[in-house]
Amino acid sequence: MTIESYSVIGKRLPLIDGVDKVSGVAKYTADLALPGMLMGKLLRSPFPHARVLNVDASKALALPGVRAVITGADIPGAKYGYFRSRRDETGLTCKARYIGDPVAAVAAVDGDTALEAIDLIKVDYEELPAVFDPEEAMKEGAPLVHEEYERNIVATREFNFGDIEEGFKNSDHIREDRFSSQAITHGVIEPRATLAQYDTSGKLTIWTSTQSPYVVRRDLSLVLSIPEGKIRVIKPYVGCGFGGKVEVDPHQVVAALLSIKTGKPVKICLTRKEEISTTRLRVPMRVYVKTGVKKDGTIVAQYVKCVADGGAYASTSVLLMYNSGLTCLIPYRIPNFKFDGYMAYTNKAVGGPMRGHGANQPRFAVESQLDMIAEDLNIDPAELRLKNATQAGDTSISGLVFNSCELSKAIKESTRHAGWDKKRGQKGSNLGIGLACGGFVSGARIAGHTASGSNILVNEDGSVTVLTGSSDLGQGSKTVVAQVVAEELGLSLSDITVISGDTETTPIDPGTFSSRVTFYAGNATLIAVREVKEQLAKVAAEHLEANKQDLVFHSKKVFVKGSPDRSIAFSELAKMAESLGQGRLIMGKGYWAPPNTQFPDRKTQYGNVSGAYSFACQVAEVEVDPETGQVKVLKVTVGDDCGQVVNILGAEGQVEGSVVMGLGQALTENIIFAENGEIMNPSFQEYKIPTAKDACDVVTLEVGSPDPIGPYGAKEIGEGLLISTVPAITNAIYDAIGVRITELPVTPEKILEELQKKRKGS
Amino acid sequence: MTIESYSVIGKRLPLIDGVDKVSGVAKYTADLALPGMLMGKLLRSPFPHARVLNVDASKALALPGVRAVITGADIPGAKYGYFRSRRDETGLTCKARYIGDPVAAVAAVDGDTALEAIDLIKVDYEELPAVFDPEEAMKEGAPLVHEEYERNIVATREFNFGDIEEGFKNSDHIREDRFSSQAITHGVIEPRATLAQYDTSGKLTIWTSTQSPYVVRRDLSLVLSIPEGKIRVIKPYVGCGFGGKVEVDPHQVVAALLSIKTGKPVKICLTRKEEISTTRLRVPMRVYVKTGVKKDGTIVAQYVKCVADGGAYASTSVLLMYNSGLTCLIPYRIPNFKFDGYMAYTNKAVGGPMRGHGANQPRFAVESQLDMIAEDLNIDPAELRLKNATQAGDTSISGLVFNSCELSKAIKESTRHAGWDKKRGQKGSNLGIGLACGGFVSGARIAGHTASGSNILVNEDGSVTVLTGSSDLGQGSKTVVAQVVAEELGLSLSDITVISGDTETTPIDPGTFSSRVTFYAGNATLIAVREVKEQLAKVAAEHLEANKQDLVFHSKKVFVKGSPDRSIAFSELAKMAESLGQGRLIMGKGYWAPPNTQFPDRKTQYGNVSGAYSFACQVAEVEVDPETGQVKVLKVTVGDDCGQVVNILGAEGQVEGSVVMGLGQALTENIIFAENGEIMNPSFQEYKIPTAKDACDVVTLEVGSPDPIGPYGAKEIGEGLLISTVPAITNAIYDAIGVRITELPVTPEKILEELQKKRKGS
Repeated sequence: MTIESYSVIGKRLPLIDGVDKVSGVAKYTADLALPGMLMGKLLRSPFPHARVLNVDASKALALPGVRAVITGADIPGAKYGYFRSRRDETGLTCKARYIGDPVAAVAAVDGDTALEAIDLIKVDYEELPAVFDPEEAMKEGAPLVHEEYERNIVATREFNFGDIEEGFKNSDHIREDRFSSQAITHGVIEPRATLAQYDTSGKLTIWTSTQSPYVVRRDLSLVLSIPEGKIRVIKPYVGCGFGGKVEVDPHQVVAALLSIKTGKPVKICLTRKEEISTTRLRVPMRVYVKTGVKKDGTIVAQYVKCVADGGAYASTSVLLMYNSGLTCLIPYRIPNFKFDGYMAYTNKAVGGPMRGHGANQPRFAVESQLDMIAEDLNIDPAELRLKNATQAGDTSISGLVFNSCELSKAIKESTRHAGWDKKRGQKGSNLGIGLACGGFVSGARIAGHTASGSNILVNEDGSVTVLTGSSDLGQGSKTVVAQVVAEELGLSLSDITVISGDTETTPIDPGTFSSRVTFYAGNATLIAVREVKEQLAKVAAEHLEANKQDLVFHSKKVFVKGSPDRSIAFSELAKMAESLGQGRLIMGKGYWAPPNTQFPDRKTQYGNVSGAYSFACQVAEVEVDPETGQVKVLKVTVGDDCGQVVNILGAEGQVEGSVVMGLGQALTENIIFAENGEIMNPSFQEYKIPTAKDACDVVTLEVGSPDPIGPYGAKEIGEGLLISTVPAITNAIYDAIGVRITELPVTPEKILEELQKKRKGS
Repeated sequence: MTIESYSVIGKRLPLIDGVDKVSGVAKYTADLALPGMLMGKLLRSPFPHARVLNVDASKALALPGVRAVITGADIPGAKYGYFRSRRDETGLTCKARYIGDPVAAVAAVDGDTALEAIDLIKVDYEELPAVFDPEEAMKEGAPLVHEEYERNIVATREFNFGDIEEGFKNSDHIREDRFSSQAITHGVIEPRATLAQYDTSGKLTIWTSTQSPYVVRRDLSLVLSIPEGKIRVIKPYVGCGFGGKVEVDPHQVVAALLSIKTGKPVKICLTRKEEISTTRLRVPMRVYVKTGVKKDGTIVAQYVKCVADGGAYASTSVLLMYNSGLTCLIPYRIPNFKFDGYMAYTNKAVGGPMRGHGANQPRFAVESQLDMIAEDLNIDPAELRLKNATQAGDTSISGLVFNSCELSKAIKESTRHAGWDKKRGQKGSNLGIGLACGGFVSGARIAGHTASGSNILVNEDGSVTVLTGSSDLGQGSKTVVAQVVAEELGLSLSDITVISGDTETTPIDPGTFSSRVTFYAGNATLIAVREVKEQLAKVAAEHLEANKQDLVFHSKKVFVKGSPDRSIAFSELAKMAESLGQGRLIMGKGYWAPPNTQFPDRKTQYGNVSGAYSFACQVAEVEVDPETGQVKVLKVTVGDDCGQVVNILGAEGQVEGSVVMGLGQALTENIIFAENGEIMNPSFQEYKIPTAKDACDVVTLEVGSPDPIGPYGAKEIGEGLLISTVPAITNAIYDAIGVRITELPVTPEKILEELQKKRKGS
């Protein structure tokens, strides 16, 4: 099938829930209310590292309207955490490990009373020595954040492919550089919220803002000692996640516990301050890169070392460290590669997954250094990348299999469209142009569930209901699922109802992360809808006296190929198939995980972890004011290979969102820690995410070709783009003013400082 | 498999939702509330037949707190009704057809305000001549309740099998008798209630007390002109139905319309008066029976004519008339049979389906007459029935196929256990013993959907979720579905979560009626769970290094037959099958309709409409006080063939409930109509349903053998028993005092009158 032959796939379609969102019909967790509902609040540690010696809640409990106070001692079950090997959270702690770690909680008749009660709880702490720097934390004798982890090392990863020493020996030119990236917040529009209802039958129902209802169910089951079958997690509308809402947050545990204790529904809505300073952050990382190249720019060897600041809890550390190494091997052919990753606990807010999980910190380093190498060798940066670009059919030295890859086309198209050759190196104009490449997985086979499932039910009037475990956070996956069904059955989007993210009625799905949803849920839905189509075709063939294989489902009709007059309306077919005593229901089910992946080898880490890989080249254009150090991003041109685009409007949204988010990470966003680890800017007044005014022009060039594994050839688009925006901008800044900042973000202060140094040096 | 080899099937198990019900956790529709919810009330016609000329709602709308008033003119769509050919309802009418027919409705901030507003609506009516008797209604020139139906005849049925004339010619003895039965109410504990929520996205969500969420969806779709895919019907806990809640009730349409009009959730809870006088009633019927027998009691020919009073709307008239004829042919071999059924509209409350739909009116007549014939021929009534009893392997003259039948055993066991021979005919003691037989379908293939579906999802911790379209009204179908899954997977009931009756997430199911649920949903669930088992067995076989067919699922383990130490815990198997990157979900789906049925032939009505038939013999023992005419039912002994019992506790509940309901129908329950059709006793003070104090001893003898089609051999048990309780009691009364009442109910007044006549006559 080519794009021309599709009716719904590859079109420009508004999200099916778009009108509900803009009209306020869509209900988010904070909008929900149940009769008799209480409000909950958390009491958080003011110390970065302190043992809770005693909690005196008597005054709080005496306050009229207070219904319960709980502490770390009330946790009934085991620790939870994303990876089985790194479970270190309990919801409420008896030892605070960062400023903001929750130690107690209150349920009261309203939020004000709960807050008042929080202030009345008296906690006796024993302050402990704390550590705030990952390299300091890994030194012998440093205070231990978790006693079980020697030298605070929570995760390490080592890859070694080819012969790195031999590689460097054979290199004509070698560079070693050091880069660092900051902590940033996900900047979700909807702060986390949870409504928990426990009833005396032992059933716990949770409405919560999450990317992974099934992960919430699993972890609540662990920490509350309630079987999964007795926990129902429902995902209402969610206002973004960007990776931050993949895991369980303490307030979810607390809401459940407070409901169990009071027998009433309990709602907790985090404040923006809590959202920024106590949930998850992008992991700050120091990245050391050593790259050896031939004179012509061909990469011979690369060594990457990452030291990550994990903060107080493990989160997805194990995967993050893997991703940091793995994703180095996507965009370019590297024959000899070594990676060392270390992540340390510190007494700071927790680092967790975020859009481009683990990939964008080393990508910033590598793409910056490639430009430096290009300058060293006097090669055009685009040329350098074209020389090393991964090609379709390649297998990386670590075992990644690239069935489809249009990176070279992406580089050529984006530079051509942006006017690269003309604009590059206009010394003195303060205008600069820079590029960077990237690539990402379409879901990764790392741990836990990897399959997604869909169940499809055809109603008697021909409308269709899809039950999918996948979670739409605003990225448009409900629309994608509806498109797949509409395309196959020849219906329109309005005929399809998508129910998602309810652990009791929708098939298990690991959640929305690793850019897996379209790839996995799309294919699962394809399997399910084709089963439905087959059943309907059988009925239609009999009715139309035709062969099943000659039938076309199109325009809400089924007709015989070449004889459009021999047709039956889809609604009539549904009725014929199901009603009037036919004794038949039209249902389809499907689950899917990529058949072409395997776990990485435990020892060597060799293996193809994803069914498909996306590629992109971005060309950023900036203007830098040398007087103020202010950077204005004028335009970013994206050459994007996400395979076959499913929804052009959705894809453009992902491109534009990624670019603007990358712009923030490059220039303005920065979580500032005080000396005691306290976050100093936990609001959008003090922490600057780009607004519409800061956004730049974004040009999207879709250069992909259909991938053989993805649904209709689709691959990832949600995360991989962000990772090349940041270095494209910093490379453009260098082109504009000859200043290279290696520590993110690129603030005016840093630019002015470097300009001054440069002036002094020259 | 024999009963001994089952772990869960055939056991004595409390309902899985029993504790929730008695502890108040279970929420019924009236318990539900949504923020901003309004309350709705209906304005009902005070006239039995009247055209609405004008509705002046100005005063009502001026009352503070009133949000909307609607009338029949606001109905946007087409008429609705259970059968396509008989759709005659709209929710609010422009022509009232009985006293209580709703003509307008109000939504207000609370119920009191809504009631007040109802009183302020001024309706101008044009009164029309009315008709109250079905035989009068069928006369030329009678007022027409629905102009489209000549002589008010809404449904007729005619069967003619064998040669009825020849049959009577060959008979040695012929009797002709006339019987009649009264209108009764279902006596549901929960009066109907509906909460409707329409949102601006065009989505209508309905929580309602119903037996058939999918029928509600279909009919609301018709009358509101909203596609089925935009209507979600959710069945909360339901407090009984007994057939009355199979159809859409006007208040459901009204709640939806008021929510559409106001943009707010609207709840309507019917009062007991409304429930009794404006929903559905058991159809009163006059039954004429002519039976010809040989000297030895062998039935040669039978002619049955039923004239039914349908009331103001069609309801399930078409099916009722069919059932009245069809069920005559279940318990006995009748070589020549003719049936004529007529149902007429009248200006009275509507007759609809009720437990034993259409069967118990003629059954009362036939079983009464068989006792009269036995007396005429001086044959023991049990002997007479044994002589004619249907046997396994029989096909009735109308095409009903009886794969299993233990009626003879039922007669023998129940009479033996009750001490029939000793107790029968003790003249002068005022004690009497009587018996009657019956049989019923296990679901019927008549119209609309006949298949039921189940989807099963296995959770990672080994708990299992079943999505079934079937509706539990208290009869225990959720427990039956859970039993099937637990039995097959070797789990306990607490491992299974059953989600049912939500049109958006559970597979289509026509609803709970015709005693179809265990039979259909049980088999559908068996198919689904066996798919699950097959998938799990594959994983287990690999793990245990065994053959799939050697695996036993038992006691929450899977083990190799004969080697119980080679085992894996079910929970571990689930985890192994689904997590850790296996890329697999364990899901099963199944739908089922009996393969051995067909539609009755349009012309001859020949055909096997049900996959299996139940049989029963009941022996009633009574004491009659000849001074007061009071009847006390002492004991009913039931010989019941429902095939393999699935849940003994549930089956006993059905037997006891049926007997006590039959006792009420026989003796005390009677809807009293005034001359103008008004119901004079619309409360449980004036309308007497039996209480625990009135209940008799019930002895249940399960005499069935497994049916080849039913799940584990199960057949119907919910309805068929009721139909033989009534004649067993009236036959026992005759045995006690020699008085035969042919018009139900058997009141003390009628007994005294007959006793007086008898004394005068003798």
